[in-house]
Amino acid sequence: MGSENPSGAGNQQERPGIEQWVVGFVDGEGCFSISVVRNAGCALGWQVQHEFSVTQAATSRPALELLVGVFGCGYLIENTRNDNHRELLLRFSVKRRSDLLRRVVPFFEENPLITAKRLDFERFAGVLRFMEDGGHRTEEGLSSIARLTEQMNRRQRSRYLESSEAIRQPSQPTLS
Amino acid sequence: MGSENPSGAGNQQERPGIEQWVVGFVDGEGCFSISVVRNAGCALGWQVQHEFSVTQAATSRPALELLVGVFGCGYLIENTRNDNHRELLLRFSVKRRSDLLRRVVPFFEENPLITAKRLDFERFAGVLRFMEDGGHRTEEGLSSIARLTEQMNRRQRSRYLESSEAIRQPSQPTLS
Repeated sequence: MGSENPSGAGNQQERPGIEQWVVGFVDGEGCFSISVVRNAGCALGWQVQHEFSVTQAATSRPALELLVGVFGCGYLIENTRNDNHRELLLRFSVKRRSDLLRRVVPFFEENPLITAKRLDFERFAGVLRFMEDGGHRTEEGLSSIARLTEQMNRRQRSRYLESSEAIRQPSQPTLS
Repeated sequence: MGSENPSGAGNQQERPGIEQWVVGFVDGEGCFSISVVRNAGCALGWQVQHEFSVTQAATSRPALELLVGVFGCGYLIENTRNDNHRELLLRFSVKRRSDLLRRVVPFFEENPLITAKRLDFERFAGVLRFMEDGGHRTEEGLSSIARLTEQMNRRQRSRYLESSEAIRQPSQPTLS
């Protein structure tokens, strides 16, 4: 009943419509994540982290290698699972801002996502451009980014907004 | 920072490369499931159930409606969540064998999956064709299907294979 091996990444990159396959796969499994985390090395004591990632069971490694090929950036990381699944997980990850701005964001602007994940992408792209203009270098800008992260993905309360630095803020302008 | 509404299903169906989007989305989120369950109404006391499904948060309803349009079959069902997520889930589901054999299977034979899910699909298609030939009408055939289900998805032990009917079997031929 058919082949025992899913297709490798090598020739799939030439498959017609591969961009649309990537859009569908990311609509399903992709994650656009922004977080504001403590980092004493940064001027304001907080750092904005950004990551585009897709996580799969390690058996689907060729599909993740295909993403590295299509985007021309990013790498694969083995995930330590925090649940009771038996399979090893693998994450395709792009963190570098220049890769995100020059490769990932233009790709999804040319090939738009279809699910509600599109809203996460638009917020993600907005934060990256805001940072490109230095917006994260002020406490007002950090607050604005932190409020946006609360609307993305798991919608968790931002630690930055609960911190004394943010509470000190007299006014908090809105990014989006 | 962009639109507040993800694109509706209506015009997306005409989007170039939509088949490849479907493949990517199903590579990520699709489920090809076969189970052998007790049903006193069936000749052997067991029934083979088959379902192709894609589950999403209800906010991505347009993406699931798009699947109904592309496959020309199936329907949307509200899922009761068994975890602590707050969002309502919606499932695109195709269960009818004729729809699976005439619409879903040919689609993924023309547009192959890329991840390891392809192996699940091949087993799924094999079982459907085996059933089309009446293979599930014997206890040997049922055992063969049940063993195949143990290699798919969550790889759970088949209740059929643990039942007295199956244990009675002197020999169990292999389907794949």
